[in-house]
Amino acid sequence: MGATAAAVPAAAELARRYAAVRRHSLALAEPLSPEDQCVQSMPDASPTKWHLAHTTWFFETLVLQPDAPGYRPVDPRYGYLFNSYYEALGPRHPRPQRGLLTRPTQAEVLRYRQAVDEAMLAFLPHAGPGALQAVELGLHHEQQHQELMLTDLKHLLSANPLHPAYLPAPPAAARPAAPQASALRWLAFDGARADIGHPVHDGFAFDNEGPRHAVLLHPFELASRPVSCGEYLQFVRDGGYRDPRWWLSDGWAAAQTAGWLAPPGWHEVETAQPQVFTLFGLQPLQPAEPVCHLSFYEAAAYAAWAGARLPTEFEWEHAMRHAGAVLRRTGGGDLHPHPRAPGAAGDAGAFEGLHEVWEWTRSAYDPYPGFRPLGGAASEYNGKFMVGQLVLRGASCATPPGHARLSYRNFFPPAARWQFSGLRLARDLG
Amino acid sequence: MGATAAAVPAAAELARRYAAVRRHSLALAEPLSPEDQCVQSMPDASPTKWHLAHTTWFFETLVLQPDAPGYRPVDPRYGYLFNSYYEALGPRHPRPQRGLLTRPTQAEVLRYRQAVDEAMLAFLPHAGPGALQAVELGLHHEQQHQELMLTDLKHLLSANPLHPAYLPAPPAAARPAAPQASALRWLAFDGARADIGHPVHDGFAFDNEGPRHAVLLHPFELASRPVSCGEYLQFVRDGGYRDPRWWLSDGWAAAQTAGWLAPPGWHEVETAQPQVFTLFGLQPLQPAEPVCHLSFYEAAAYAAWAGARLPTEFEWEHAMRHAGAVLRRTGGGDLHPHPRAPGAAGDAGAFEGLHEVWEWTRSAYDPYPGFRPLGGAASEYNGKFMVGQLVLRGASCATPPGHARLSYRNFFPPAARWQFSGLRLARDLG
Amino acid sequence: MGATAAAVPAAAELARRYAAVRRHSLALAEPLSPEDQCVQSMPDASPTKWHLAHTTWFFETLVLQPDAPGYRPVDPRYGYLFNSYYEALGPRHPRPQRGLLTRPTQAEVLRYRQAVDEAMLAFLPHAGPGALQAVELGLHHEQQHQELMLTDLKHLLSANPLHPAYLPAPPAAARPAAPQASALRWLAFDGARADIGHPVHDGFAFDNEGPRHAVLLHPFELASRPVSCGEYLQFVRDGGYRDPRWWLSDGWAAAQTAGWLAPPGWHEVETAQPQVFTLFGLQPLQPAEPVCHLSFYEAAAYAAWAGARLPTEFEWEHAMRHAGAVLRRTGGGDLHPHPRAPGAAGDAGAFEGLHEVWEWTRSAYDPYPGFRPLGGAASEYNGKFMVGQLVLRGASCATPPGHARLSYRNFFPPAARWQFSGLRLARDLG
Amino acid sequence: MGATAAAVPAAAELARRYAAVRRHSLALAEPLSPEDQCVQSMPDASPTKWHLAHTTWFFETLVLQPDAPGYRPVDPRYGYLFNSYYEALGPRHPRPQRGLLTRPTQAEVLRYRQAVDEAMLAFLPHAGPGALQAVELGLHHEQQHQELMLTDLKHLLSANPLHPAYLPAPPAAARPAAPQASALRWLAFDGARADIGHPVHDGFAFDNEGPRHAVLLHPFELASRPVSCGEYLQFVRDGGYRDPRWWLSDGWAAAQTAGWLAPPGWHEVETAQPQVFTLFGLQPLQPAEPVCHLSFYEAAAYAAWAGARLPTEFEWEHAMRHAGAVLRRTGGGDLHPHPRAPGAAGDAGAFEGLHEVWEWTRSAYDPYPGFRPLGGAASEYNGKFMVGQLVLRGASCATPPGHARLSYRNFFPPAARWQFSGLRLARDLG
Repeated sequence: MGATAAAVPAAAELARRYAAVRRHSLALAEPLSPEDQCVQSMPDASPTKWHLAHTTWFFETLVLQPDAPGYRPVDPRYGYLFNSYYEALGPRHPRPQRGLLTRPTQAEVLRYRQAVDEAMLAFLPHAGPGALQAVELGLHHEQQHQELMLTDLKHLLSANPLHPAYLPAPPAAARPAAPQASALRWLAFDGARADIGHPVHDGFAFDNEGPRHAVLLHPFELASRPVSCGEYLQFVRDGGYRDPRWWLSDGWAAAQTAGWLAPPGWHEVETAQPQVFTLFGLQPLQPAEPVCHLSFYEAAAYAAWAGARLPTEFEWEHAMRHAGAVLRRTGGGDLHPHPRAPGAAGDAGAFEGLHEVWEWTRSAYDPYPGFRPLGGAASEYNGKFMVGQLVLRGASCATPPGHARLSYRNFFPPAARWQFSGLRLARDLG
Repeated sequence: MGATAAAVPAAAELARRYAAVRRHSLALAEPLSPEDQCVQSMPDASPTKWHLAHTTWFFETLVLQPDAPGYRPVDPRYGYLFNSYYEALGPRHPRPQRGLLTRPTQAEVLRYRQAVDEAMLAFLPHAGPGALQAVELGLHHEQQHQELMLTDLKHLLSANPLHPAYLPAPPAAARPAAPQASALRWLAFDGARADIGHPVHDGFAFDNEGPRHAVLLHPFELASRPVSCGEYLQFVRDGGYRDPRWWLSDGWAAAQTAGWLAPPGWHEVETAQPQVFTLFGLQPLQPAEPVCHLSFYEAAAYAAWAGARLPTEFEWEHAMRHAGAVLRRTGGGDLHPHPRAPGAAGDAGAFEGLHEVWEWTRSAYDPYPGFRPLGGAASEYNGKFMVGQLVLRGASCATPPGHARLSYRNFFPPAARWQFSGLRLARDLG
Repeated sequence: MGATAAAVPAAAELARRYAAVRRHSLALAEPLSPEDQCVQSMPDASPTKWHLAHTTWFFETLVLQPDAPGYRPVDPRYGYLFNSYYEALGPRHPRPQRGLLTRPTQAEVLRYRQAVDEAMLAFLPHAGPGALQAVELGLHHEQQHQELMLTDLKHLLSANPLHPAYLPAPPAAARPAAPQASALRWLAFDGARADIGHPVHDGFAFDNEGPRHAVLLHPFELASRPVSCGEYLQFVRDGGYRDPRWWLSDGWAAAQTAGWLAPPGWHEVETAQPQVFTLFGLQPLQPAEPVCHLSFYEAAAYAAWAGARLPTEFEWEHAMRHAGAVLRRTGGGDLHPHPRAPGAAGDAGAFEGLHEVWEWTRSAYDPYPGFRPLGGAASEYNGKFMVGQLVLRGASCATPPGHARLSYRNFFPPAARWQFSGLRLARDLG
Repeated sequence: MGATAAAVPAAAELARRYAAVRRHSLALAEPLSPEDQCVQSMPDASPTKWHLAHTTWFFETLVLQPDAPGYRPVDPRYGYLFNSYYEALGPRHPRPQRGLLTRPTQAEVLRYRQAVDEAMLAFLPHAGPGALQAVELGLHHEQQHQELMLTDLKHLLSANPLHPAYLPAPPAAARPAAPQASALRWLAFDGARADIGHPVHDGFAFDNEGPRHAVLLHPFELASRPVSCGEYLQFVRDGGYRDPRWWLSDGWAAAQTAGWLAPPGWHEVETAQPQVFTLFGLQPLQPAEPVCHLSFYEAAAYAAWAGARLPTEFEWEHAMRHAGAVLRRTGGGDLHPHPRAPGAAGDAGAFEGLHEVWEWTRSAYDPYPGFRPLGGAASEYNGKFMVGQLVLRGASCATPPGHARLSYRNFFPPAARWQFSGLRLARDLG
């Protein structure tokens, strides 16, 4: 499968995780009406209902059909509707038209999930090693889609002039009180020969996280926390969106064409109290929170304005490993659909603000030396996207608990703004 | 208001009609899930939910707010969301983004309708002549949207590869048995000085149906019924879509660019039994039924291939009046969302197949001599669209009962295909 | 051929006219460099060199090849390159790519013209009636292209920030001194049954000018001269481009999308002395001259702002015939590539300012009753464009002498702005 | 300036090179008519005349205006017309409209060149170190444009259905006789710590070629010569353009959307003797010649099909340096606008076919560690394009003699096909 070689997980453990991951997807959809779950706000985003069906199709197509004796697909037409991009698995519904699928209805998709879940749980005790690895891949795949469910839904809600909320805003007492971001510190790292990528036999990883290999790093320093909304507001107010000096050529063109004046979802920026669209609806801008929903172009422009740069993905991984950083959700395991200020919830250690926003790096999403996509349909999982995209590292507030890794390579095109994406500054040393 | 001057309707009668018309809109939405009602399949179409809200906004904005003392809008933000195109009534939500409005939800829109209905029914006994005329306009406006609810919904469902049905297909016994269309007869009309347009004092009409005026007609003949699916299939099989001789230049370009090979919704045309997408789902092509969902370009190409032409709107109106044609729904008052074969249900008289498909004419949608849009917001109702469109006459199977008139001028751009639009042939005489 | 039936012209007379018309095309190209003649500034416009070759191809293809015994095409590949839109004559070079044809060179095209001219003049004494009619059509066709050579070239030069001139501006003394437009008078016409269209046996006309037929007209009045630049400037300064009340819906959308703020070629409109791009380069706006390069949308918006309307093409033709108007170039036969103020050069009679700008009418370009395109390739000449366009009447300063007729129906889509197009106001009477 | 620090060149030597480089540009334009030099075939390409003017503007703006006392620009408006992309130097003519500039004429641009050349040659003996460095940059800049003159012109001629030639094809005897490509050998390289980038004090280089730095390489092997037309034809005939397995996802989408079926300029591929468009016109495909005009997507797809991959730019540079490769034009200094078969003209050494086609690498165009754009307008020279592009290494048959370097980093977006771009295969070892 599309994962790097690793020990085969035990069936019982997988069954437990299977149930938990599948339940979490439903929990994310719980606050939404059928309408919210059906509409597609742009070609890059998908409806919640489609995510729920596609992740189910993944198990049906890559586990049950090849491996479960006598399994019959719930509906043979779903293969066409819910294939995302696997050319090897036949033709598929065009991505920009996913939002037209008012049928199957929400209820039918839930029945589809239930039928596949029952078949999966019945099959798992009998699964061989290959099937178990496919199940593990399917669970990580579904976790990726859990984050996308939130990003895509947030984009949809943000396009509504009523600024509707996904969840009611928590009472003020329950929200982190962080009027000030922690002081930004620079952590220095010597030049080094650093090992990059997921270590074999260290649990699951996607194929693009390996092979582990050495790179040479020059001395650099990395900021202790992501750039905050307050800092980014200074860039906006300093005319950063009107000055081509800070921008890459393509970024300047994109900003001019689309009329970017601030991050998406920022309103009333020219007033004393800008508002920011969140999954709790429109909220006052919190200066201490990490800035979010930046394109790579904006992240790079901010870094240039700040006299710094973006780190490479190798610097990022090396620094984090070296500092013993841990990627965990600050608020425990509960739903946490909005970036929080570092320190607000007891964040500690050399680096702060991890697991709040994905951090753009200066690295193109290229294959590691010796990378080879594996056989079968899963060979299309990662490798075929390795051009025209940039790597993001870390994890965001919308990444499900337990899904983050220091070797994880998220990737998006440089103009993408609907992800929970921010930046952490770097500088050359010596 | 935007209607031609006519006697003011009585308040009690209007209240009765108000209740009936408003109920009919809900009945049309009844078979649909909230998802079906929310999604927008293309910029020209609107979601069912939007139609339900917009027609409500019309009464709120043009009757209750100006005329009902003390009325307070249900939600002041709805004015922005549900204004269709009235520049005089302020900014509005962009048309192509109507499908993004998952909020207000279906339930909220129904509450909106209910609140306005209660206010309207309370207000009507006290309404003055101006308000009563506005109510009458609002009812005809809502009837127009009732047809659009079906056309827009049908376009949405047709974009779904599952070919879902709006309604379950009636049992075979209940469907018209018409394997053969009635023989096509030509009805001849002498040259004449004909009066065209809605007669004053003959009930309601839209402003674009007047002023009534005389035109000169040359001798012509008009077909007794619309072109049938069976006849149109011959055009398709004769290579009509591949031969530029039959096509207007713009039509040929449109057909090539979009890859038209048959009417929209026709499947398996190359087989012995083509299928047609209907509101009952995919059904075998019925040769006797009027061909439907043609663009003007296709209608004109067919007419050229058939050695005939489209009638002008003046010829059409004159012939129908002269022959004493009546526009009524063949199946009584019940829902009838699919064109039926003339004769199937007892159609009689000189002309058959009226009220089955809108009939494209060869007339550009231009103002009648002396046309003057009236004052106020309603001045935008019709006049500002008088360029680049063609007139369609008659009514379709989706036009609500009682909404059709011989002077009615429907209009669409020449490439529009999602309406229930067909054609009736004409020829020069003498 | 594509002309209405008429007496066959005499061969000797045609040969004389042939030589004169062909010479005039070359005279128009004379002031231009090969570069000026090769470049295409937008898909709707064609390079001068292409016009010179296409008009030659017309004679070669419709006269010499079918009728001149033993004629061999100059280059068989030219049929592909220089066919404009005749589907019956085979595939053709895509219109938007005409400007890529740096080869054949200017010199080669001139040799092509010369070879065809020699063959034509040798053939003409032997031509039969059909060929002679084709030649006549070809001459009128070339005259149409003579006007297009100037309009297309003007568009090209207007896109150059250097504002280059086609011709040196004449010395001030030679230019019409008309600081003031003549006072606008309204000429009244009774309701009437009017004969419209080209009379049979009255010389050449295009097929779309007939059949001659009667229409009913209501009382109206027509302005004595076109709207002037000075008058139109008031509309601009009154905020006419920012007020949707005056605009048709499609017009408003076009103006917003394209950012129209004034007619094309108007510069420094907000200053006391606006500049206008002309074929003499940038010149001070002349208030008395007819406003030019308007789209139909702008013409209609101006008319609405002025409390008037555009005339129908029938009103226009009837009024002109009734008043004995004559379409002739004011400055004699010489080149006159810029609209002049009425009265400036001795303009007289009831109507002034004819032959200065094409005048948009309120009439869609529809076929006259009984219109039937004739056989052969020429059947594509006019009829296949009869949808989506508006009729313009009169003639412009760029129309070659002798090419204008009161029955002439020019036509363009409503957004077209690169023609020499203005307007004359009309009003209802009684 | 935008070059890496290097010894200041001597004024006399620069003057000699200045004259030679400027003369070479004119020699390239010599076979072209004014029309050929004016037209722009797509937004990415520029007209020859524009290249001639822009390279002149570069010297005028970056040398004469800041440094030559009393210098007055030839025409102050040229700064607007001929600035390519330097935001710091003010607004500029939009790139897609460069082809509309029929004025200034060809003759005027030649006069512009002459005036600037005279001023430059008069100024050079008095130039200080900064100005001399700017001159050197300007000469390398002009050499870059010399290659673009040929690539852009070739694109223009290829869009002409007549397949015109830039130069007459040489007589058969003068053309390389190479029916067979040399056998493809694999040259192996051990893993290594390799120094990459231009060595300081080793003559001129662009800023993006430094800083020189070490990278770690894994064992690999590199093909002795580029992929040949004959080999690529097998890929085409094996259905390579119809099989998504070989393609990156973006590449597959690009190929489907644009309908790629073979490299641009290949005709009659399905016949036994395909034709290829060259600067000598249409010529029979030469199996031994390097395949050319590939996009990165096609190069990567071919490599996947061949069971190999593209080299990284680091592997390429290391292998070439290690093998002592030399980049020189095989045919001496004469004009050589078409790739030749390796071995045809005495090519020798470990690597063959260098300086025939640019070779796509698998490396995104990212900044080297420590890269910092320098100050002034030249800071925009390279750095601002460092996203979304891929590095090409080597040089092509259209690269002017003396302009190639082993550290040279050419870069284009992955879909670009109008460059002289091919590929050399690589494979992992061990």
